[in-house]
Amino acid sequence: MSRWKPDAAGRLIKAAITLFDQQGYDETTVADIAAAADLTKRTFFRYFADKREVLFSGSEELVHLWLEAVAAAPEGADPLAAATAGFDPVAEMFVERHEFARMRARIIDSNPELQERELIKLQNLAGGVKSALIDRGVSSNAAILAAQASVTVFHVAFARWVEQDDPAAFRRLMDESLDELRAVATA
Amino acid sequence: MSRWKPDAAGRLIKAAITLFDQQGYDETTVADIAAAADLTKRTFFRYFADKREVLFSGSEELVHLWLEAVAAAPEGADPLAAATAGFDPVAEMFVERHEFARMRARIIDSNPELQERELIKLQNLAGGVKSALIDRGVSSNAAILAAQASVTVFHVAFARWVEQDDPAAFRRLMDESLDELRAVATA
Repeated sequence: MSRWKPDAAGRLIKAAITLFDQQGYDETTVADIAAAADLTKRTFFRYFADKREVLFSGSEELVHLWLEAVAAAPEGADPLAAATAGFDPVAEMFVERHEFARMRARIIDSNPELQERELIKLQNLAGGVKSALIDRGVSSNAAILAAQASVTVFHVAFARWVEQDDPAAFRRLMDESLDELRAVATA
Repeated sequence: MSRWKPDAAGRLIKAAITLFDQQGYDETTVADIAAAADLTKRTFFRYFADKREVLFSGSEELVHLWLEAVAAAPEGADPLAAATAGFDPVAEMFVERHEFARMRARIIDSNPELQERELIKLQNLAGGVKSALIDRGVSSNAAILAAQASVTVFHVAFARWVEQDDPAAFRRLMDESLDELRAVATA
């Protein structure tokens, strides 16, 4: 029925984020999102399982980039250096998405169910980093601790990044948070 | 209809854990649990919102003990020392619950929904520790990082504790995990 529309997924994400932000997450339906993107509900469900998944559609890419970087870290890298090797590609991935990330953060902060989903995604990321570290020969205990530390640092830096205006600041904020973690752990 | 039965909550917890472990969490109903404890469903719902909450009934006490200890930590304690001040009372709380904790860990490990609930409880704990640190005058960033580190160390030590046979080992395992975290962060 409808002609081919380029970047349907991108348009659905933009429409969803805008509607969630303007009229509220709970108040927005898949039908609203599809209509705002000038697409059908059927097209929506070709890309996303439900409206919630629109907010987490970048997480697979994030995990993929991060784990690839852990695997590719220099052979002699210590566990935390290897775990945080994901910071470079992840900061690069996000630099174009600052406005999206800010709106998304507001939406998630306003909804406990979305906050829970966010936490679970972060814990899945930590689990992936842990496995990638174990694959590098890191002991299970050090792998869990380094993975969790790296994800916490990422999370803290992310929260700061969406609160300020410079899209390019993410990488620096990660370094600052990492330094703070080191300071906390060695006090 | 039924005469008063002492420690109804304790009996319901024991019955639930045993049934979850023997016949599976999904396969066990509230009616099964109540019957095994020789109590009514109505009594069950006086103590627990649903069968899942039986597994998390200790978490309020855990959070309470932990946050109280953070607030009571010596004035000069650094953020991580204050955050981990909860280890003493928490280890003491758990020493009598080793067998329960082991069965509970098996049940949770077998069910993704329960694993998610466990993660969220841990993150709520970390949020509480963070707030308690901020109340002590710790900066928001250091508070988040120290709180998350303390909860990760607790979580790692807990997983080791349920895998070995000595109920009294928990406190020592917490110290070992904390040392490992320091080593990871300063490598």
